[in-house]
Amino acid sequence: MDKQKLIDRLDLPAGLRSCSLDELRTVAGELREELIESVSASGGHFASSLGATEITVALHHLFNTPQDRIVWDVGHQAYVHKMLTGRRERLSTIRKKGGLSGFLKRAESEFDAFGAGHAGTSISAAVGMATALNRQDPERHVVAVIGDGSLTAGMAFEALNHAGDLGLKNLIVVLNDNEMSISANVGAVSWLFSRAITSKTSNMARSSFKELHRRGYVPELVYKIVDRAEEAAQSFFASPAMLFEAFGFRYIGPVDGHNLQELIQALQHAKTQDVPVLVHARTQKGKGYEPAEIDPVKWHGVSPFDKTRGEFMPAKPGGGAARIPPSYTAVFGETLVELVKNDPKIVGITAAMPSGTGLDKLQQESPQNFFDVGICEQHAVTFAAGLACEGYRPVCAIYSTFLQRAYDQVVHDVCIQKLPVLFALDRAGAVGNDGETHQGLFDIAYLRTLPHIVIMSPKDENELRHMVYTGLKLEAPVALRYPRGNGTGIGLEQPLKLLDVGKAEVLCRGEDALIVAFGPVVAYALEAARRLEKECGITTTVINARFAKPLDEALLGVELQRHRVLCTLEDHALQGGFGAAVTEFANDAALELQAPIQRFGVGDEFVPHASQAEQHAMHGYDAAALFAFIASAAGRRKIAAVG
Amino acid sequence: MDKQKLIDRLDLPAGLRSCSLDELRTVAGELREELIESVSASGGHFASSLGATEITVALHHLFNTPQDRIVWDVGHQAYVHKMLTGRRERLSTIRKKGGLSGFLKRAESEFDAFGAGHAGTSISAAVGMATALNRQDPERHVVAVIGDGSLTAGMAFEALNHAGDLGLKNLIVVLNDNEMSISANVGAVSWLFSRAITSKTSNMARSSFKELHRRGYVPELVYKIVDRAEEAAQSFFASPAMLFEAFGFRYIGPVDGHNLQELIQALQHAKTQDVPVLVHARTQKGKGYEPAEIDPVKWHGVSPFDKTRGEFMPAKPGGGAARIPPSYTAVFGETLVELVKNDPKIVGITAAMPSGTGLDKLQQESPQNFFDVGICEQHAVTFAAGLACEGYRPVCAIYSTFLQRAYDQVVHDVCIQKLPVLFALDRAGAVGNDGETHQGLFDIAYLRTLPHIVIMSPKDENELRHMVYTGLKLEAPVALRYPRGNGTGIGLEQPLKLLDVGKAEVLCRGEDALIVAFGPVVAYALEAARRLEKECGITTTVINARFAKPLDEALLGVELQRHRVLCTLEDHALQGGFGAAVTEFANDAALELQAPIQRFGVGDEFVPHASQAEQHAMHGYDAAALFAFIASAAGRRKIAAVG
Repeated sequence: MDKQKLIDRLDLPAGLRSCSLDELRTVAGELREELIESVSASGGHFASSLGATEITVALHHLFNTPQDRIVWDVGHQAYVHKMLTGRRERLSTIRKKGGLSGFLKRAESEFDAFGAGHAGTSISAAVGMATALNRQDPERHVVAVIGDGSLTAGMAFEALNHAGDLGLKNLIVVLNDNEMSISANVGAVSWLFSRAITSKTSNMARSSFKELHRRGYVPELVYKIVDRAEEAAQSFFASPAMLFEAFGFRYIGPVDGHNLQELIQALQHAKTQDVPVLVHARTQKGKGYEPAEIDPVKWHGVSPFDKTRGEFMPAKPGGGAARIPPSYTAVFGETLVELVKNDPKIVGITAAMPSGTGLDKLQQESPQNFFDVGICEQHAVTFAAGLACEGYRPVCAIYSTFLQRAYDQVVHDVCIQKLPVLFALDRAGAVGNDGETHQGLFDIAYLRTLPHIVIMSPKDENELRHMVYTGLKLEAPVALRYPRGNGTGIGLEQPLKLLDVGKAEVLCRGEDALIVAFGPVVAYALEAARRLEKECGITTTVINARFAKPLDEALLGVELQRHRVLCTLEDHALQGGFGAAVTEFANDAALELQAPIQRFGVGDEFVPHASQAEQHAMHGYDAAALFAFIASAAGRRKIAAVG
Repeated sequence: MDKQKLIDRLDLPAGLRSCSLDELRTVAGELREELIESVSASGGHFASSLGATEITVALHHLFNTPQDRIVWDVGHQAYVHKMLTGRRERLSTIRKKGGLSGFLKRAESEFDAFGAGHAGTSISAAVGMATALNRQDPERHVVAVIGDGSLTAGMAFEALNHAGDLGLKNLIVVLNDNEMSISANVGAVSWLFSRAITSKTSNMARSSFKELHRRGYVPELVYKIVDRAEEAAQSFFASPAMLFEAFGFRYIGPVDGHNLQELIQALQHAKTQDVPVLVHARTQKGKGYEPAEIDPVKWHGVSPFDKTRGEFMPAKPGGGAARIPPSYTAVFGETLVELVKNDPKIVGITAAMPSGTGLDKLQQESPQNFFDVGICEQHAVTFAAGLACEGYRPVCAIYSTFLQRAYDQVVHDVCIQKLPVLFALDRAGAVGNDGETHQGLFDIAYLRTLPHIVIMSPKDENELRHMVYTGLKLEAPVALRYPRGNGTGIGLEQPLKLLDVGKAEVLCRGEDALIVAFGPVVAYALEAARRLEKECGITTTVINARFAKPLDEALLGVELQRHRVLCTLEDHALQGGFGAAVTEFANDAALELQAPIQRFGVGDEFVPHASQAEQHAMHGYDAAALFAFIASAAGRRKIAAVG
């Protein structure tokens, strides 16, 4: 009972290499237990990692990591990998400021062969690595571990196709098939895993043979042998094998991904092949923690929970009846449901994120107006363009960071053709504990350069509703960006209003300073303005820009010349962002400014994981930063004016 | 003989619907003849359209266009479609300023159901349209026509996957299989079309059955029946049918894509199916014009030629021995070959564009350092990232417009991890007669917002060489942009030099005006400066910026404050581009400017096809535009100063 754990005695991960099967089973059990313990206390992505426990142990047992490379797709599934590679003690810091990343990160460990966060990249990276290693040291292997959801991403197919062509024998792809991406899986690829393909020809062959046997033309022995072979052939062709063999891979499986013996045998076999191999492991998301096995979607990424009772901790201890404002996501989703009632041509499209984007509401209320295309942002956008051509009003609800995956489709299929597609960019701005890979900090820059598009962002969840409504009335591509997290708690107005495109809103008027803010960071501007007035007697004009493109040039032209301290504020990278647009305008319009424009936002660096408030503060674009700057700049000027 | 052509007598395309098979054959022949006639005189994309003549005729015969939709992938293949849909007379204007677009364009014709130019979008758009039409009028069909090359694009797989899931019975995909993308095809997908897949299981079944028959256990009759069925089954599984049936499509084919009877039968059959159908048509690129049949790569897109002799017209009549400077593409390709000789870790990667990018030179000289991944920009970039992780120095040679397809991979796999991948962005800037879909006018904006990346562009082909060399020495992602077309003819220096990152070059010094130019448009700045001095006595400082990121802040800080007329010049969109970066810097550094910065480049609009020089002139960023502005602005100021 008080015996030290095996994982404490082993030199991990190298120590796994000499472990017996029983010892490996013990290790897997101990890891799983510790994972449940840790995540229940600190939160994190959970169900995927529980499901990949045995795969992880088997890989580190059989492969000489880090000399052999393991490339984890997305990274949700890699917590056990982190525990095995020197990060057990720090597991409770995961996704917290200064702590472990929730995803893979090359800078964090030499065992993290390739960083990830977005889906579908692992095979491409592994093909690159395997190509390189193959030339230097062909004994070293590269293993990509990819979920069945990620496999629907087009780039995964591109990579399979190329890998088959290269014939890399040091490449192994482990398909971690839990019949589930983040939500349920979509499309023919998933369907391939769950149903047999019955080809007319093959069935015909079989039934004519059966008929011959029935009529006595085929001796019993022959029938048995041939029938079994036929059955084998048919099950071969009916399985995922068909798909992967078509791409030039050898297919091994399916194996039980929780049975270490089966897994190790399959991987051992894979190591000896002379072509790339796909090992198909069936796993159960949430394996080993019953509540997560039952509802893996709910337990995908979790906040701290009571592991015995399987219940999440209340958000604020003792919070009681204090109302939490609705999230931007929820308000967006509900607004769309309202709008669809009056216009059946409105359709919502998600790339495998129905609950993340709030479209699950639409899916429930009006399934015929809802499309989930799988982890296929590219297709989602061009599919939307096709619908728009036929008079539909598609809303592509895609996180800001994931729209990067469909940038060419936004340019080539939507903007050039000026099709009315509304992009609902959730998670725009700093996204908190997901970190670098998921930051929505580039969308204004990459979209603003494109002709025809309108870019807007609301100051609060009520304005978000009017913007959804307005966006669906415009005959142009529209990007509507809003952040992760909860709104302000403001009341939601009825009826929905049409906003004037390119018109900003003056929220308060002052004499000393100007803040032009884009999006919900308007709240920081208002808070700074209040404090400046109260604490320093400095009065500030605060403008809610509403539109980054087109800008309200008439208003800005006046206000920028009227104030002595000028600030822009955005939850976005400064290079090419909203403040840059204002600066370009001020220059081009030859405005006579009394000071440079102080642009608040993220400087030229990637933003690691921390809470959103911490990220805003670290990068100097919260209320405190505005206050400090304006107090100093306007104070100096006040003194200068008085002096 | 002098009889009017049938295509002149028919009301096209509706008239095709009542044509007999013989009449359709006549139509196809007449169209092909006229196409050869027209393209030989005016140039254009050629071989693909010749290959798709019968497909086009069959589609407009069987489908009620434009009520039924035809979505052409890329658009290379659609010249005959243009001829059949009211654009015969204007065919000779193709790709010329004000003339027909070389690709599909919704604004050009109601028969162009969806615009294109980039590969792989057609199925997605068609799925969107078919979904919409299916709800309104399920009798209307949507046909996507896609080449085998385009099918390697990941988004085509995403679309197939979704279409199979939706089960759209009004969707037909015609695979125009000429076993050839722009160059030769790559990967397992193409391999699937050319070789049989022999599965161990199926072979085993077959050989054991044969063995039984040999030993006399199987009566002859049984053997024959079963063997034939087995053979049929095997050929079924060995064909592309397997792949498409796996995605939930019904597969029809392969049919001879030049045999109208076969094509019409197959399409007729396809119309009656209750699931999406893929019709596999084998065609020959360049069909009907012998030189193009023999060398379809050379005849893919052509300049005017002598159709009898099959020879291209000389570029300049009577040009004689006048040396044409080498293209940027060629200089890039040759420089890479030089560098690979000293560093075998340098590898070149193309996405199906070996000759377009100049990497064909590397492919010939050092095939082990060359990779063609197919039309798979996404995979190309992450594959490069994987190679970079293992100490290789990958050069991704991708046109500026096509890198849009891999934007997320640039962000997520390269820049976040700060991997040393060199992006060689050919066709950056206005690209001439390819038009809107191919313009490389957004790369500075979409890349400049990303941390870690270095962005450079040379003033001429000699500097391009030093930049390739420099880019491969940096431990960071680098984007090197250069335009379509020929260099200046300047001599090429040896040895290659390491340029200082973020250092600009002053090309000439003046007192009155400043032009900061980025890329080969520096030549316009020099020309304007010469004319200004000669014709107006105005002297101009011209800076070759070399880097858009990082900027040479030290130099710009001085020069921007020293001059009274300030200009930036770039072959790029103004929003978020190079001039925007300079403007941001001037603001942030609180420079005391004597005038606003006049930014020369493309305004907020898409740029249609015309020659490059015409595009520069139309958008006001050539030498004449600079001259006019500076002459006026500096002249005014000179007078003011004197006055």
